[in-house]
Amino acid sequence: MTSFVFRWQMTVEFGHCDPAGMVSPKRLFEYFDTGTWSLFEAALGVKRQDFITTFGILPLVDVRLDCRKTVKFGDAIEIASRVAEFRRSSFDVDHRITVDGELAVEGGETRVWAVRDKNNPDKISALAIPPEIVARFG
Amino acid sequence: MTSFVFRWQMTVEFGHCDPAGMVSPKRLFEYFDTGTWSLFEAALGVKRQDFITTFGILPLVDVRLDCRKTVKFGDAIEIASRVAEFRRSSFDVDHRITVDGELAVEGGETRVWAVRDKNNPDKISALAIPPEIVARFG
Amino acid sequence: MTSFVFRWQMTVEFGHCDPAGMVSPKRLFEYFDTGTWSLFEAALGVKRQDFITTFGILPLVDVRLDCRKTVKFGDAIEIASRVAEFRRSSFDVDHRITVDGELAVEGGETRVWAVRDKNNPDKISALAIPPEIVARFG
Amino acid sequence: MTSFVFRWQMTVEFGHCDPAGMVSPKRLFEYFDTGTWSLFEAALGVKRQDFITTFGILPLVDVRLDCRKTVKFGDAIEIASRVAEFRRSSFDVDHRITVDGELAVEGGETRVWAVRDKNNPDKISALAIPPEIVARFG
Repeated sequence: MTSFVFRWQMTVEFGHCDPAGMVSPKRLFEYFDTGTWSLFEAALGVKRQDFITTFGILPLVDVRLDCRKTVKFGDAIEIASRVAEFRRSSFDVDHRITVDGELAVEGGETRVWAVRDKNNPDKISALAIPPEIVARFG
Repeated sequence: MTSFVFRWQMTVEFGHCDPAGMVSPKRLFEYFDTGTWSLFEAALGVKRQDFITTFGILPLVDVRLDCRKTVKFGDAIEIASRVAEFRRSSFDVDHRITVDGELAVEGGETRVWAVRDKNNPDKISALAIPPEIVARFG
Repeated sequence: MTSFVFRWQMTVEFGHCDPAGMVSPKRLFEYFDTGTWSLFEAALGVKRQDFITTFGILPLVDVRLDCRKTVKFGDAIEIASRVAEFRRSSFDVDHRITVDGELAVEGGETRVWAVRDKNNPDKISALAIPPEIVARFG
Repeated sequence: MTSFVFRWQMTVEFGHCDPAGMVSPKRLFEYFDTGTWSLFEAALGVKRQDFITTFGILPLVDVRLDCRKTVKFGDAIEIASRVAEFRRSSFDVDHRITVDGELAVEGGETRVWAVRDKNNPDKISALAIPPEIVARFG
């Protein structure tokens, strides 16, 4: 587990919730995605919009979500994201959403360190993650 | 694994895709959600909008997604959903997304068979799934 | 008003609705967007994913929405889209959403017929709409 | 035009953008919706999740959007929302999105001051907006 954690706070908006008044799972995954971009921007010092041209893209291959407690409209939540493990060309990010300090949702993503093929932009190739990148996450 | 499978076909729309031109994970979970509602409507013969008052709600407690192949703007996809297992008051739904017959995404959800507490609508209680419901899924 | 109309039917899904059980306006605009892509694919015979490379992009500059009747979870709706007016390099698309044949939502978009600048992909330039394109809409 | 303005800043996330790298219109409307809830929470001192039970709901009947400048992935934007006009039971909210201080998007909404009918929760009735509410917006 790396030591660099990115934390941010937000309010659950009306438009994030389904007719049962709970955050819809698809929105929880969007919170995670924002967490991953913010974590990499903070750790690497490269703006999210410049990330793709500087490094490549980070396609998702695996996501999971475990809801312990309902997250509702108007809840003030905190999302904490960190890289759980770097492997050769893929890595795991862990996300924890808390409501009033209590763990509500745990999630995890697996992403690939990848670049578009210059000859075939529809093709994406995994690359080894540079050690200096890994070092930035502590 | 139950035998009742709900299949539907759709086109991946522009607005479902991120700047990399791939379906965003949050949208894949929305496809799954639509699959689950459609599966229950088809198996039980109760319209989705009447489901909540007839039976209760089906909150998600667990979701996972495994992307094998990129799903892109304009792809014609098929989503097949079935209940993998019924337990006392929870159940798993499996979803498979295929592009041209080839498996692109596998996903799974765990949901609870639940009703709102009459005295406290913010509280949700799990109920035993009636055997006649289980029987409808084959 | 052109004569070519693209009509499609769909069910309003749980995940399209807000805590008040109504389709959220953002989703209505997504219905419109799907309508516009479908209309152009049908009229021009070019798949939506090939549209960008064949012709260019169709950025929105103006949208409006007028809700006459609530659209709710489970409603079976029809969306009808047609081009209201072609001008030199921009055009208007009208969308009508009906529930049980009754008009529920009227909307309109203004889009530009545009291509990315070859020297600066961040720049988009409006082009005159070719008359043979206009002719396909009747 | 009332004098109370609610301003907030945010970054345009990857998941807000379409394959052309621009914020999708549906997301711009979600920004507006968040602006309206925040404006009312700030002006009235009632939390957004308590608003519905305290006052009622604020269904949208009309929305419009005018894009002057593209809003892109990673842009740091400011959204400023204020009530443009209160009428008997409806009101207009104006929204302005700026990028680096430059106006990028202008939008407007018309909403109704409404309550659910106690005898028929599917029915919504417009009410006169209390003058003490109007007074809070300056």
